Amino acid sequence: MTDRLTPAPDRFPDAPRVGIGMIGYNLMGKAHTNGLLKIPHMMYPPAAVPVLASISGRTETAVAEAAARYGYANYSTDWRDVVNDPAVQVLDNSGPNALHAPATLAAIELGKHVICEKPLGMTAAESRQLWLAAEAAGVKHMTAFNYRFVPAVQFAQQLIQDGVIGDIRHFRGQYLQPSLVDAEAPRKWRLDRAEAGKGTLGDLGSHTVDLARFLVGEPVRVNGIVKTMVPERPSVEDPSALQPVTVDDAFVALMEFGSGAIATIEGTKYATGRDNFNQFEINGTRGSIAYNQEAMNELQLYTDDVGPDGANGFRRVTCSQPGHPYAEYWWARGHIIGWEHTFVHELHHFLDCIVNDKEVAPLGATFEDGYRVDVILDAIAESSDSNGNGVTISF
Amino acid sequence: MTDRLTPAPDRFPDAPRVGIGMIGYNLMGKAHTNGLLKIPHMMYPPAAVPVLASISGRTETAVAEAAARYGYANYSTDWRDVVNDPAVQVLDNSGPNALHAPATLAAIELGKHVICEKPLGMTAAESRQLWLAAEAAGVKHMTAFNYRFVPAVQFAQQLIQDGVIGDIRHFRGQYLQPSLVDAEAPRKWRLDRAEAGKGTLGDLGSHTVDLARFLVGEPVRVNGIVKTMVPERPSVEDPSALQPVTVDDAFVALMEFGSGAIATIEGTKYATGRDNFNQFEINGTRGSIAYNQEAMNELQLYTDDVGPDGANGFRRVTCSQPGHPYAEYWWARGHIIGWEHTFVHELHHFLDCIVNDKEVAPLGATFEDGYRVDVILDAIAESSDSNGNGVTISF
Amino acid sequence: MTDRLTPAPDRFPDAPRVGIGMIGYNLMGKAHTNGLLKIPHMMYPPAAVPVLASISGRTETAVAEAAARYGYANYSTDWRDVVNDPAVQVLDNSGPNALHAPATLAAIELGKHVICEKPLGMTAAESRQLWLAAEAAGVKHMTAFNYRFVPAVQFAQQLIQDGVIGDIRHFRGQYLQPSLVDAEAPRKWRLDRAEAGKGTLGDLGSHTVDLARFLVGEPVRVNGIVKTMVPERPSVEDPSALQPVTVDDAFVALMEFGSGAIATIEGTKYATGRDNFNQFEINGTRGSIAYNQEAMNELQLYTDDVGPDGANGFRRVTCSQPGHPYAEYWWARGHIIGWEHTFVHELHHFLDCIVNDKEVAPLGATFEDGYRVDVILDAIAESSDSNGNGVTISF
Amino acid sequence: MTDRLTPAPDRFPDAPRVGIGMIGYNLMGKAHTNGLLKIPHMMYPPAAVPVLASISGRTETAVAEAAARYGYANYSTDWRDVVNDPAVQVLDNSGPNALHAPATLAAIELGKHVICEKPLGMTAAESRQLWLAAEAAGVKHMTAFNYRFVPAVQFAQQLIQDGVIGDIRHFRGQYLQPSLVDAEAPRKWRLDRAEAGKGTLGDLGSHTVDLARFLVGEPVRVNGIVKTMVPERPSVEDPSALQPVTVDDAFVALMEFGSGAIATIEGTKYATGRDNFNQFEINGTRGSIAYNQEAMNELQLYTDDVGPDGANGFRRVTCSQPGHPYAEYWWARGHIIGWEHTFVHELHHFLDCIVNDKEVAPLGATFEDGYRVDVILDAIAESSDSNGNGVTISF
Repeated sequence: MTDRLTPAPDRFPDAPRVGIGMIGYNLMGKAHTNGLLKIPHMMYPPAAVPVLASISGRTETAVAEAAARYGYANYSTDWRDVVNDPAVQVLDNSGPNALHAPATLAAIELGKHVICEKPLGMTAAESRQLWLAAEAAGVKHMTAFNYRFVPAVQFAQQLIQDGVIGDIRHFRGQYLQPSLVDAEAPRKWRLDRAEAGKGTLGDLGSHTVDLARFLVGEPVRVNGIVKTMVPERPSVEDPSALQPVTVDDAFVALMEFGSGAIATIEGTKYATGRDNFNQFEINGTRGSIAYNQEAMNELQLYTDDVGPDGANGFRRVTCSQPGHPYAEYWWARGHIIGWEHTFVHELHHFLDCIVNDKEVAPLGATFEDGYRVDVILDAIAESSDSNGNGVTISF
Repeated sequence: MTDRLTPAPDRFPDAPRVGIGMIGYNLMGKAHTNGLLKIPHMMYPPAAVPVLASISGRTETAVAEAAARYGYANYSTDWRDVVNDPAVQVLDNSGPNALHAPATLAAIELGKHVICEKPLGMTAAESRQLWLAAEAAGVKHMTAFNYRFVPAVQFAQQLIQDGVIGDIRHFRGQYLQPSLVDAEAPRKWRLDRAEAGKGTLGDLGSHTVDLARFLVGEPVRVNGIVKTMVPERPSVEDPSALQPVTVDDAFVALMEFGSGAIATIEGTKYATGRDNFNQFEINGTRGSIAYNQEAMNELQLYTDDVGPDGANGFRRVTCSQPGHPYAEYWWARGHIIGWEHTFVHELHHFLDCIVNDKEVAPLGATFEDGYRVDVILDAIAESSDSNGNGVTISF
Repeated sequence: MTDRLTPAPDRFPDAPRVGIGMIGYNLMGKAHTNGLLKIPHMMYPPAAVPVLASISGRTETAVAEAAARYGYANYSTDWRDVVNDPAVQVLDNSGPNALHAPATLAAIELGKHVICEKPLGMTAAESRQLWLAAEAAGVKHMTAFNYRFVPAVQFAQQLIQDGVIGDIRHFRGQYLQPSLVDAEAPRKWRLDRAEAGKGTLGDLGSHTVDLARFLVGEPVRVNGIVKTMVPERPSVEDPSALQPVTVDDAFVALMEFGSGAIATIEGTKYATGRDNFNQFEINGTRGSIAYNQEAMNELQLYTDDVGPDGANGFRRVTCSQPGHPYAEYWWARGHIIGWEHTFVHELHHFLDCIVNDKEVAPLGATFEDGYRVDVILDAIAESSDSNGNGVTISF
Repeated sequence: MTDRLTPAPDRFPDAPRVGIGMIGYNLMGKAHTNGLLKIPHMMYPPAAVPVLASISGRTETAVAEAAARYGYANYSTDWRDVVNDPAVQVLDNSGPNALHAPATLAAIELGKHVICEKPLGMTAAESRQLWLAAEAAGVKHMTAFNYRFVPAVQFAQQLIQDGVIGDIRHFRGQYLQPSLVDAEAPRKWRLDRAEAGKGTLGDLGSHTVDLARFLVGEPVRVNGIVKTMVPERPSVEDPSALQPVTVDDAFVALMEFGSGAIATIEGTKYATGRDNFNQFEINGTRGSIAYNQEAMNELQLYTDDVGPDGANGFRRVTCSQPGHPYAEYWWARGHIIGWEHTFVHELHHFLDCIVNDKEVAPLGATFEDGYRVDVILDAIAESSDSNGNGVTISF
């Protein structure tokens, strides 16, 4: 150092530190951790600075590597150690579905705040248990429906709240992926009910249902057809052996909202040629909104009050303009952000709620939201068991 | 004439003349007549030359004007006169829904061929009656599902038949229009069950169901929610008086096909900002197809066999290339055609079937197809009456 | 006929009849004739009823067949006979470029009105001769820049005239086709300077330059690079023999307008994968417009006065709404029209100008416009001869 | 910590540490620093671990805050201190254009590697000086043309290298932004030649020219029109005073490549309604490629070898599939990345070149590339001074 250089001031002196315990190091663990690492300098000034305390995962070499890679202080192959880690104030439960309940309940018991990946529980009943436990313990709780934290989606929600598209009459949402098109694709844990609880309903449908609730409101009845299109797939361990697929891998459903609005929703992993096609369209009495996750920096918006005569149409709103949700934290107009940024926004919101005792809802999804989504998903499955007959939603 | 000019040879000497009787002069009458007038010189050489014999409509001045405008030899305010016109060999029933059955049956009784607009009958039972009568009389019969005659749709059907996208797993079809968004829009005849039989189900849903059957196959079960979102509207005659809307104006439905494929379908006139958004997407085991009527000269196609590695994706196929359906009759590649051309293709097909004793199906929709569509639409309505419970399709 | 049928009234009793002489029966002859045949019943009530008097073409069997197909009374293999036909009041010169001047001049000499395909003359000098002759003779004259008659283009022009996008700063226009990508494609007449005058400049560039003038104004200077990318191609008659391509087959150019606006323009037949990609974008001080001929029923429009905050963007205006140019003549909103309809609008405008002594300009392109376009095209070629040096436009 | 937790292993034990000195904390300093912070755990395992040594900026409070925010050890208001910082092995010159040369030369003199933002020098002569100095000193040097590090752009380059689209005939590139549409927007430093060297040519045009060179090759001649559309703007300090804009704010140009391919290129800050519309299209003898920065995760690709007959078209390739450039480092297919990730890729490449003595080119742009781009930009400006006359490129 030359003597003319000045040492940097203390970092984030006013921001409380919050110790994070992470379960999982795969796609979700990676995305959440990346989000946490970005918070201090990008959601600037941060409400809180997350401290990576410990991480757990099933395979020792992998979890040790993940800990070193991301800077977690400690690791374990047993999630209980992370939950019990006194440096952990917040459990980030990004583990497989079957761990959602036990680890979350254990953390709640210790008075720790929990953000848990979706679907929240293996069943709606389990989700309800988590919600009631978290409420009783007075901890903050969040279900990681990250698509609420896309700027375009949040802007859509604001427009709807402000009455810009009037009263909503239609919602149509589809989440289309191609990952199971190949009938020889292996039977991973997500295709086993004992590990996953539900299949495409939980992986994809939960997002669509959450967005429907976030943007439109509460459904009162569903009809559903739930399918397992390829009933047996090669075992991951021994590809020559077939194992049964014990969850749904595609579904379609109708929903009616309390407001009278109606919806089609759909999720599939058999959408050949689609990548991450999470889209919805909403038609209101004064306008419409359409969105697709693959073009997540844009909103298609129609409002009926645009002129001159005959010069109206759906407009492509790029959601990185000054004043748009989270735009202040990022780059310049049209300099797009990506999927990972939803986690930055989401986790920062959760930390902010914790350190400033704010409400997670309605911007974020609580465990109650996670539970309600699971009730609806279970109702879709129940409907399918009886020819798609109408099932009334009762929370 | 200079003496060096040569008189043109006889026109279409080898093409039989077929006398046409038209019911209706509004949008459909206009579109059908325009189609007939184009056939001889554009579907060249034509299978037959339509001769505009007579036209009927309710209002004398209007029907007289239409006759002169388009070149019909005669007119009447009574459709029976058109049916009875000895110069009429083919009845083109483009009148209001309530006239579909009586005029069609009268024509069949006289041994005349009939093309009838959709929805075929006021109910499935009535449609069945038309079908059986036409079959018994040995006349050619066609339900005017004109979207089968979009080149892109027909090309899609060929690709599916050729196995290009493999076995179909998903169909999702929506027909979105905005015409009833305004709650003050008048209660036209289409909103009166006595005149129209059904509402959006018949106007829009019939097309989607026909395309699903044309492209995917026969459904075995449906679930539906059918709505009348605005139950009263101003009378056409006296806008200060409200009249009840006695048909559906929006619906959503699920379908399961015999093959196991599943579908969402939807039709609404409350799609603010959409014009004529008749779209579908089909996902198969080897590829996918997507289509939107507003870009009717294109097909979005994905097949999984395109390289090099990583260089695949949905491709925009412009359906005006040499070899595409009907491309030979029109212009150059990329020089698009429009909505009206579906009627040219459709009516030429019907004339070709008549004069050359060909089968209307499977390219065209017969009365049996019209009937089957109505069965499915009625099943959707029936399902809606009982909470969307599953209704098995039985023809 | 039953005695209850009423004979249709006289057709178009108030519309003058105008005798048409057509040169050419290929793509342009077919498109113009189809347009003429549609005018009476579709541009209803028509300003005039065209009467197909005579048609000429090089090959007797083909021209005789065309005459019968379309209903021309007479035909000849010599265009002079059509020009001289006393039944011809309007010459529609849709023949090859080398015939534009002689046939047009001959018709003018006889006091006949002329609509002539583009490019008007083989050179700007020849075009000027046609313009001055037509003016001197007092006949109506039109250069067939049909894209002015796309509803979306005309709506764009109205928006610009009304100041909706403010003062124009940029024009960028490209006309991209793939027809010469294959180096083995034959050397058709359009690639021979003696027959065609110019190549892609005339075929495609003339449209772009006309649209630039129509929408933006008069350029004052150009720079150009003009190419013949494949200098020899197989003879049409004897594919084993190569013949020189003596015209340009691709070009790029810059233009500066009198207003200070600047432009890039481009035309090529080497745009692999593009079909009829005639597109432009215009940026003004208050808004922007973008257009593509392959989606000719739409205009992309941005105006800076749309709210609420942050909810603005380019909007897709479907140009078939009530009040849009020509919408009254066609179908319903979103029920698109096609390329052929530009000719219906164009020819009806010309007939209207003739029978009602209206001005062809500024809506339509006169011979003066055709001449001015040719001056600009010639300047681009001249620029290219000297390293793209600036060439001042002087009419 | 519970005693069952294991401390994480050392982080990146095999990766060399590289000390970074940063000039600038605004948009570019923020984007580069964010990129550096992501490298270790996201470009995993990293070639090197950047160590944030020191940062400089003009305003003390701001630079001190930036240092703390991002974790730089030290800061200074004088860039010389950063250059001289012995902990700095690599200078990241993200400062204003006028600092590019002096700071870069000072760092080279000390044998430090330099990555410098574009445009490299204030003039081509200055850029040449930087290039020759860096070469003479044997340091690694890179011009920060980050769009080369978009996965889709790099994939395009690979496809072109592999001959997938054949020989290139056309390039058309536009970089459209709206930031100066408002004539009252302040005269920032980028509009002052003394501070910026050039205007839109340097800001936007440099990217387009670099992409043209990266993807197509070296141009041999240009023609240009360079404009200053609003010659005076309000002073930043005193909005009531007007200051002259002394650089270009919009330009259009033609280029001819050594291969004979031709191009239009364009850059403007007067593109009302466009955000960051950096797009290009390339037409080759066997295929075409189109790209737009606002949809940076996609490539539009056409190749002429796709079947079945008539089933070809431009395809939308989502560039996040296994095997795509950088896909291994990020998320799942269709889970898009954003603008910031170009800097992660770019800076990791530079570090990799430094620690493993690899060549920056041809993947990255060297100072020679920066120099050559500046030669071309200067030639465009020179051309504009003489009516757009052709200027031969000579490096």
